[in-house]
Amino acid sequence: MALKLGILGATGFTGAELIGLALRHPEIDIAWLSSESQIGADYRRIYPAFGHRLADPVSRLVSIGQAQETPVDVVFSCLPHAASAKALLPFLRLPQVRCIDLSADFRLRDPAVYAQTYEHEHPEPGLLETAVYGLPEWKRAEVKEARLVANPGCYATSVQLPLLPLLKAKCIEPQGIIADCKSGVSGMGRKATDQSHYIACNESFSAYKVGDTHRHLPEIKEQLVLAQGGEVSLLFTPHLVPMERGILSTLYVDLKPGVTGEDAKALLREAYADEPFVVIRDDLPKTSEVSRSNECHIHAYAPKAGGKLILISVLDNMVKGASGQALQNMNAMLGLDETLGLR
Amino acid sequence: MALKLGILGATGFTGAELIGLALRHPEIDIAWLSSESQIGADYRRIYPAFGHRLADPVSRLVSIGQAQETPVDVVFSCLPHAASAKALLPFLRLPQVRCIDLSADFRLRDPAVYAQTYEHEHPEPGLLETAVYGLPEWKRAEVKEARLVANPGCYATSVQLPLLPLLKAKCIEPQGIIADCKSGVSGMGRKATDQSHYIACNESFSAYKVGDTHRHLPEIKEQLVLAQGGEVSLLFTPHLVPMERGILSTLYVDLKPGVTGEDAKALLREAYADEPFVVIRDDLPKTSEVSRSNECHIHAYAPKAGGKLILISVLDNMVKGASGQALQNMNAMLGLDETLGLR
Amino acid sequence: MALKLGILGATGFTGAELIGLALRHPEIDIAWLSSESQIGADYRRIYPAFGHRLADPVSRLVSIGQAQETPVDVVFSCLPHAASAKALLPFLRLPQVRCIDLSADFRLRDPAVYAQTYEHEHPEPGLLETAVYGLPEWKRAEVKEARLVANPGCYATSVQLPLLPLLKAKCIEPQGIIADCKSGVSGMGRKATDQSHYIACNESFSAYKVGDTHRHLPEIKEQLVLAQGGEVSLLFTPHLVPMERGILSTLYVDLKPGVTGEDAKALLREAYADEPFVVIRDDLPKTSEVSRSNECHIHAYAPKAGGKLILISVLDNMVKGASGQALQNMNAMLGLDETLGLR
Amino acid sequence: MALKLGILGATGFTGAELIGLALRHPEIDIAWLSSESQIGADYRRIYPAFGHRLADPVSRLVSIGQAQETPVDVVFSCLPHAASAKALLPFLRLPQVRCIDLSADFRLRDPAVYAQTYEHEHPEPGLLETAVYGLPEWKRAEVKEARLVANPGCYATSVQLPLLPLLKAKCIEPQGIIADCKSGVSGMGRKATDQSHYIACNESFSAYKVGDTHRHLPEIKEQLVLAQGGEVSLLFTPHLVPMERGILSTLYVDLKPGVTGEDAKALLREAYADEPFVVIRDDLPKTSEVSRSNECHIHAYAPKAGGKLILISVLDNMVKGASGQALQNMNAMLGLDETLGLR
Repeated sequence: MALKLGILGATGFTGAELIGLALRHPEIDIAWLSSESQIGADYRRIYPAFGHRLADPVSRLVSIGQAQETPVDVVFSCLPHAASAKALLPFLRLPQVRCIDLSADFRLRDPAVYAQTYEHEHPEPGLLETAVYGLPEWKRAEVKEARLVANPGCYATSVQLPLLPLLKAKCIEPQGIIADCKSGVSGMGRKATDQSHYIACNESFSAYKVGDTHRHLPEIKEQLVLAQGGEVSLLFTPHLVPMERGILSTLYVDLKPGVTGEDAKALLREAYADEPFVVIRDDLPKTSEVSRSNECHIHAYAPKAGGKLILISVLDNMVKGASGQALQNMNAMLGLDETLGLR
Repeated sequence: MALKLGILGATGFTGAELIGLALRHPEIDIAWLSSESQIGADYRRIYPAFGHRLADPVSRLVSIGQAQETPVDVVFSCLPHAASAKALLPFLRLPQVRCIDLSADFRLRDPAVYAQTYEHEHPEPGLLETAVYGLPEWKRAEVKEARLVANPGCYATSVQLPLLPLLKAKCIEPQGIIADCKSGVSGMGRKATDQSHYIACNESFSAYKVGDTHRHLPEIKEQLVLAQGGEVSLLFTPHLVPMERGILSTLYVDLKPGVTGEDAKALLREAYADEPFVVIRDDLPKTSEVSRSNECHIHAYAPKAGGKLILISVLDNMVKGASGQALQNMNAMLGLDETLGLR
Repeated sequence: MALKLGILGATGFTGAELIGLALRHPEIDIAWLSSESQIGADYRRIYPAFGHRLADPVSRLVSIGQAQETPVDVVFSCLPHAASAKALLPFLRLPQVRCIDLSADFRLRDPAVYAQTYEHEHPEPGLLETAVYGLPEWKRAEVKEARLVANPGCYATSVQLPLLPLLKAKCIEPQGIIADCKSGVSGMGRKATDQSHYIACNESFSAYKVGDTHRHLPEIKEQLVLAQGGEVSLLFTPHLVPMERGILSTLYVDLKPGVTGEDAKALLREAYADEPFVVIRDDLPKTSEVSRSNECHIHAYAPKAGGKLILISVLDNMVKGASGQALQNMNAMLGLDETLGLR
Repeated sequence: MALKLGILGATGFTGAELIGLALRHPEIDIAWLSSESQIGADYRRIYPAFGHRLADPVSRLVSIGQAQETPVDVVFSCLPHAASAKALLPFLRLPQVRCIDLSADFRLRDPAVYAQTYEHEHPEPGLLETAVYGLPEWKRAEVKEARLVANPGCYATSVQLPLLPLLKAKCIEPQGIIADCKSGVSGMGRKATDQSHYIACNESFSAYKVGDTHRHLPEIKEQLVLAQGGEVSLLFTPHLVPMERGILSTLYVDLKPGVTGEDAKALLREAYADEPFVVIRDDLPKTSEVSRSNECHIHAYAPKAGGKLILISVLDNMVKGASGQALQNMNAMLGLDETLGLR
C-alpha cells in the first residue's frame, strides 16, 4: 500500500517541484497540500501544469489545522524559516510521522548561531539536537533513523559534496577556502519583488551577499568543521544567473603539502564510487546537464604550478538542492531504495 | 573636417559594435569596411539595424587591398589574431595612419610567450616593442604618442582595472590572486559552433579554460607584473553566462599586513577620481547597469575576519571590453576629448 | 540655450528610457524628475546606470508640487492613466509649456469610450478635444501646433503604421483585420507581480487579453476608423515574449478586389519614402534589428493564392513605442529636426 | 520481458528527447543508438546528462548496418527527411518490426506533393500508401494496426488538434483559416548555423516562412482536408521565440452561421473528453505549463461581435510535437496503455 505524504507550504517553488517529483514516485500518494494564505484554493489553478495529474480533493489547499486531521506517513515542510519549525511541531509529536524540513530551521546545531543568523530566537531550540542534517551521502545511517531531517540548502549541498571527502581525508587546507557560487533565479523564491522582476534578472549578472554575509555560510561551515574536526575559514560569494534553475560552484582550495591533484581526484572518485547521485567527471560540467535530475557532477582541476585545486560542482537547486534531496532523504528514512522516483 | 576611419574585419561582433559607436561619434566618418570573406556584400544586409545609418558605397565590404586605396586617419582591426597583424602591416607603413588592433596580436611583449600562447610564431615580432597596451587609465601618455595600440582583452580589462592601483601601491599581495570571471555569450564571437548554439547556452552556466588554461592569462599577468614590479601568481577561471553581453569579475586577494579594507577602497577611489569611465561604487554593481556603456564599475568588500579583499568589477565586454575602449584609445591618440562619442 | 524638460513619474521603465534618450539629445536639459512615491530619493540609486550622467540636484526626485516651482519648456508624463491627466493639469494651464503624455489618458476622443475602457470617468474630459494623437508620420502638422500630445501606445504604433496608408488608399478591406501581436516583458511595466516574476516569463510564451479584450483596441481602432472614413473591424491578440524589449505585429488583411500585393507594397514604400523612422523592407525583420532605435521596420507578403496580405512590423516598445516617439513628438512641437537625439 | 527499441539518428534533439523519455518507460529497453556521422562515439560524451543512465555497449553509437544485427521490436527514426526513409527501408522488410518515423518522409500521401515540397523525389513512394499518420487522438485504430507510423510535425500537431473536431463537425468555415504559430528554438534542430547562434535568437522575435511558404503547410492541410471532406484554405506563419521549447498556435477561424462560441467549446470538450493528453481549458494556457509533458492544452474564445473563433493551443514541440507523441504511437502500436512512460 502506498505511503501517504503531506506538504506544508505547497505553493512555493520547492513545493511545486516536490509535487512533480512525488507524482512520479511509485510508492507514495499525496494526502494533502497546505497553504495558510490560500486555504480552499485549487492547486491546479495556481499550477495548471498539474491539471491532469492532481485530483480533487487533494488539489484543494488545506490549513495546517485541517492537515492534521488526515493521517500521513511523511510530512515535508516547504515553508520559510521560523514558520516551518512552528508548523512542523504538531506533526513531530506524532510518533509514526517522519518530518523533512526544507527550510533552514533545523540545519544548525547551535540556537545562538541560529538566532544570530536569522535574527530571531529559534522557535523550538530543544529539537535542534535531534534533527539530522540530511546530506544522505554523508549522513545515511543517521538519516535512516531520523524522525526529523533538516534538508540542506542548495548552495550548501553544492559546496559540501566536493569539499567533505577532501577535508575528511586531510587532503586540503581547511583555511582560505573560496566558494564562488552561481545560482539560477528560482533560488530567490516565488515572491514577486523588484529583484525577481524579469527585467531585473534577464540579461544581467550580479553578486549578492558577498564574502561572509549570506545566511547559508554558517550552515556550510558547520558541516565542514564537523568533517574536518577543527576550524575552517571560508569565503562564500553567491551570484545570480539569468536562468531558471541550476547552481555551479567554483571552489578554490590549497592542497596539503605532498598531496597532488591526482591524489585529490582519486579520493573524490573513491568517496563517491557507490553513490547513485554524485558523478566525478573528467570534463567540465554544465548546469544544464543536471537540470531536473538529482545528480551533482563534480570536476577537479589542479593548476600546473601546484599547490592549488579548483573544484567545480553543478546541481539543480530545485532537485538535488531541495526537493529531490528531500525525496532521497524520505526514501532513506522509509527503508526504500534511495533512487526511487528520482531516476 | 571629420577624420576618416577604416575597419578591418567589420563583420564580427566587435566590428558591428564599433560601427554603431562610430556612427554616434561627432568627429569621425567611416571610410571603408573590409571583409575578406564577403567582399562586395552590402553590410546593411548582414546587419539590417544599420539600414538607415550606413550609405552606399561605404556599406559595400571591400578587400584589404581595395581598402588601401582610400586614405584614412585611423584603422581598426577586428580580425582574429594572426590575421590581424598581417592585415595591419601595410597600414603601419603609412606614417600618418594610426592603428588600433582589437585582436591579441600586439598585447604581449615577448614573442616567445605569444608563440606559446597562440601556438604559432608571431607574424611581425619586431612590432611588439612599439605597440602600446591601450588601457587608457594606466597608459594615457603612451597611448597619445602611439601609432599602434593593442586594445586589451575584455577579461583583462575587467581584472586589471581593480587590481592595478592596489598592486602599484603594494596594498595587496601579488601571490595567490583569484579571478573568477563570468561573461555573456557575445564574447565567444560570431562563428556558429556547437558551443554558441542557442540551446547549448540558454538555461545553462558553465566554466571553461579553468585556472591557468585560458589564452588571456599571460596578457592579464604581464600588465600586473609591470605594475607590481615583480612576480604575480594568479588563477583565472572564465565562465559562460546565458546573456548577450557583460562581464562580472569576482577577485579574491590578500591584503598586505597592516592594510585595511578601508585603505584599499580609499586607494581605489583616489586612483580613479578623475577617470570618466571608472566608477567605484559602495553598492554591488550588476552587468546590466553598464550595458552598452563604456564604464567599468568596481565594488570592494573586506570580510570581517580581516586579511582578505573581494573586488567585483562589471563592464560591457563589447564596449569597455572591446570597441568602446578602442574608440577611447582613438580619441586619446588623436588628441580629442576621451569621452567623445562614448557618453 | 538648451530647452528645459521635466518628467512626471520618472521611475518607471518609460521614464528611465526617456531620460537615457534625453541625455543624448543635444538641445535639451533635464530640469526635474518627479515621483510621488519616492520624493527626495536619488534617481542614481534606483538606476545606477545613470550614476555618471545625472547630477545633483536634478537626480533628486521631487513632488509634482515642487516640480511646478522650476520653469520648463516641456513636460513629459510617464505616469499611469488617470494619475497622468491629473498631474499634467497644472502644467497645461501654463501657456508656454508643451505637454506630452505617454499614458493613455488623452488618446481617445470620446469620454464615454474612455470611461468604458478604463473603468472610471475621465478626469479632464474637456481636454480630449484639444489633445493631438502623436503619431508624427500621420499627424505632423497637428503635432507641430499642439500644446498637448497624446503619445500613442506601443501596440497601437506597431499596428497603425502598416495599416494606415493601406486603409487611407482603400487598398485593403476595413473588415476582418487580424492583428496578432507579440511584445517583450518591459511592456508590463516595472511593478513586481506574479506575472512579471522572472520564473513566470522566462522559457514561456503566452497570449493575454485575447481578441477584443485589451484596452488598447479602442485606441487602435479609432485611428484606423479616422483614416478609413468608416467602420473597421479588428481582432487584436497580444502575446508575451520572454525578452526585454521589442514588439512584432503580424497583420492579416484582405486586399480589395483588383489590388495586388505589389500595389500594396508600392503604396507602403511611397507613403514612408521620406520618413526617417519607417523602413519598408524586402526581407523579414527581427525585433532585435530595431532594438534601442526609434525605427519601425515593415515587411509585406502576399500569399500566392491571392486576395490576402500579411504585414509584419517590428519596433522597440520602449523607443518608437513610447519614449523615442515622445521625443520625436517633442522635436516636432519645438520646430527641431525630428530626428535630433534619435539617431 | 522488456521490448527492445532502436533509434536511428540518435544524436539530434528529438533523438536525445526520445532517449530521455524511453529511459523512464517501464516496458522498453534501448537496444542500440545509431549515428552515421559518429559511429563508435560514446553517447554519454555528447549528452553528459545521460552519464549515469545509459550503459556500455548501448551508449556506443552504431552504423545503420551494425544496427541491423541486433534484433529489436521497434525502430524510431530521428533522421532528417530523405535520409530517414532510406534508413528505415531494411527494417520495414522485417515483418516483426514496427517503425516510427519522426521525419516528414511518410506524412504526405501524394508523392508529387512530397517532391514539390521537399524538392526531391520520394525515395520510397510505394510506402506512402501504407504509412499511417500518427496523430493518435484521430487515428488510433489505424495506428494500432500500423507497421509504419509517420509521426506528425510539431506545428501540425498544434494546429490540427484544435481544428480537426471543429472541421469534422462542420462547425467552422474551411476557408480563410489563419494559423499564427510561435515556436521555441529547439525546433530549428541541433545544427550550428547563423540562425541558431545564441546571439541571433536571444532577445529577438521574428517570423519566418510566412503565409504559404513553410514545408509543413501541405502536411497540415492534408489532414484538415481529410477531416473536412473538401477544400481548406489556410495561412500559416511560424515565428521564432527566444526560449528552448514550446509551441503556441493562435488560430483565427470563422464560425459557420448559427454556430456559437459555446457550441464550439462544447464540441471541443466532447471530442477530447476521454483523451489523456488533450486538455480543453477555460483560462489561457502558457507554453511553460506543458513543458516536458505530452499534453496539448487548448483554449477557445469567441469575440463578442460574433462570427469568429480564436483558438489557442500549446504543446512542447519536443514531446507532444515529436518524441512524446512517437512513444504514444509506440504504446498504441504495441497494445500498451497509451500513457505508459508519458505521465
